[in-house]
Amino acid sequence: MKELLHIVKVGGHLVNDVAALNTLLVAFAKIDGPKLLVHGGGRHATALANQLGISPKMIDGRRITDADMLEVAVMSYAGISNKKIIAQLQQLDINAIGLSGADGNCIEAVKRPVKEIDYGFVGDVVNVNSGVLTSLITNDFVPVLCAITHNKKGQLLNTNADTIAAQVAIALSSQYDVRLFYCFEHAGVLHDISAPESVMEILTEEQTTKGIKEGSIHQGMVPKLHNGFDALKKGVKEVVISNTTTLTNSNAPKTTLIWNA
Amino acid sequence: MKELLHIVKVGGHLVNDVAALNTLLVAFAKIDGPKLLVHGGGRHATALANQLGISPKMIDGRRITDADMLEVAVMSYAGISNKKIIAQLQQLDINAIGLSGADGNCIEAVKRPVKEIDYGFVGDVVNVNSGVLTSLITNDFVPVLCAITHNKKGQLLNTNADTIAAQVAIALSSQYDVRLFYCFEHAGVLHDISAPESVMEILTEEQTTKGIKEGSIHQGMVPKLHNGFDALKKGVKEVVISNTTTLTNSNAPKTTLIWNA
Repeated sequence: MKELLHIVKVGGHLVNDVAALNTLLVAFAKIDGPKLLVHGGGRHATALANQLGISPKMIDGRRITDADMLEVAVMSYAGISNKKIIAQLQQLDINAIGLSGADGNCIEAVKRPVKEIDYGFVGDVVNVNSGVLTSLITNDFVPVLCAITHNKKGQLLNTNADTIAAQVAIALSSQYDVRLFYCFEHAGVLHDISAPESVMEILTEEQTTKGIKEGSIHQGMVPKLHNGFDALKKGVKEVVISNTTTLTNSNAPKTTLIWNA
Repeated sequence: MKELLHIVKVGGHLVNDVAALNTLLVAFAKIDGPKLLVHGGGRHATALANQLGISPKMIDGRRITDADMLEVAVMSYAGISNKKIIAQLQQLDINAIGLSGADGNCIEAVKRPVKEIDYGFVGDVVNVNSGVLTSLITNDFVPVLCAITHNKKGQLLNTNADTIAAQVAIALSSQYDVRLFYCFEHAGVLHDISAPESVMEILTEEQTTKGIKEGSIHQGMVPKLHNGFDALKKGVKEVVISNTTTLTNSNAPKTTLIWNA
């Protein structure tokens, strides 16, 4: 049996809320054994862009990362969000080390190929350097990854944090039994978005496809779910969607994804 | 004899000049053996602060780091400057890893005590965690340190990059023969600021004290020189002040500091 590794992905919503982030980090610090945190950026980047007079570019409702927005994302995610998280984890005696995908070349991506839409400086992950992450973990570091990658040709790229979490989980599943937590503000995927207690205990891929089609699963959940099922299919032991409480209380409500139920 | 370690400190002036930075990084990449880069921030932070409508606070001609300026410094130094450098070094096949002092708790500082002036969120280095840096170096990473530290109590702090370079050099000199390069735009300390070729080959502490007193040594050089002599006194093998050329050409003009001449 392989050693257990916890990977926790925390969304921008929690990252930008001082109290919620603190609760999350305290819970994360209590997890025994090797662990890794992935964080989104979220509203800080949007607020910073606004302050700088950079308006978010949208094409057909999709967000585009132009050069200015990339710079904002790097300053926000790899700069202030990542370093604040690191400083707080260090205060909790967790030997956190902040990483973009460029650091140690831990996540290599390619600029998303232009089809109907040119997304700009958005990176699709092509390789997770599991050797680098394992080397850090075995040297007692706790990697904290932000949603910035690079193409190994000098270009930084903006990359979805849910995807980073899943790809890192998959890459590390050859060495570890990986438990992947997508932490957000709800206790899980809800039967009824207006009823916070209506948490689906388990969610199969079939139910997910149906739920997305029928609109009962919120659009914002789709990347987490697609990435989560992808992770399960590629060797990750467990994928859970819930809030911070799950990290320290195994009896707390949560949604566990089931692929081959 | 211990293994040789090169520590290169590059100032904000070079960091913010795309061509100059590229030249520096190409030269740095060519240095054989273990190495470490420390970079300042410089004008990008000032420009960002201006764009955000944050005016630099000065008391008695000293720059103060208030909460807003600290956030700007973190975004600029640990965010965009550090990650651009990392991406460029990775392109050059150097396995760079970007660090603030909070990452891996590699540099612990205290908020500068308030005497006549409250400098705000400025950190004085109290401990360099040489074990963490050595562990990264022996695992074939090339650490790239920015001018942000922390106090291990959750607070990030702005810290002089010249001091970081010297303190890291001192801490690592028990394991390595450390050669510390302060790289800036001139070929060395100049006899005559208007004559770029008037490089002082060697500079003793006595000459430095005299030069500072008489005003023949430029104010901007003072932190480098104080830190450089401190490093020499505490075990660093060699301290050189020069431009990028020195990194790849040992015959290029440069100023070597001599403590016990």
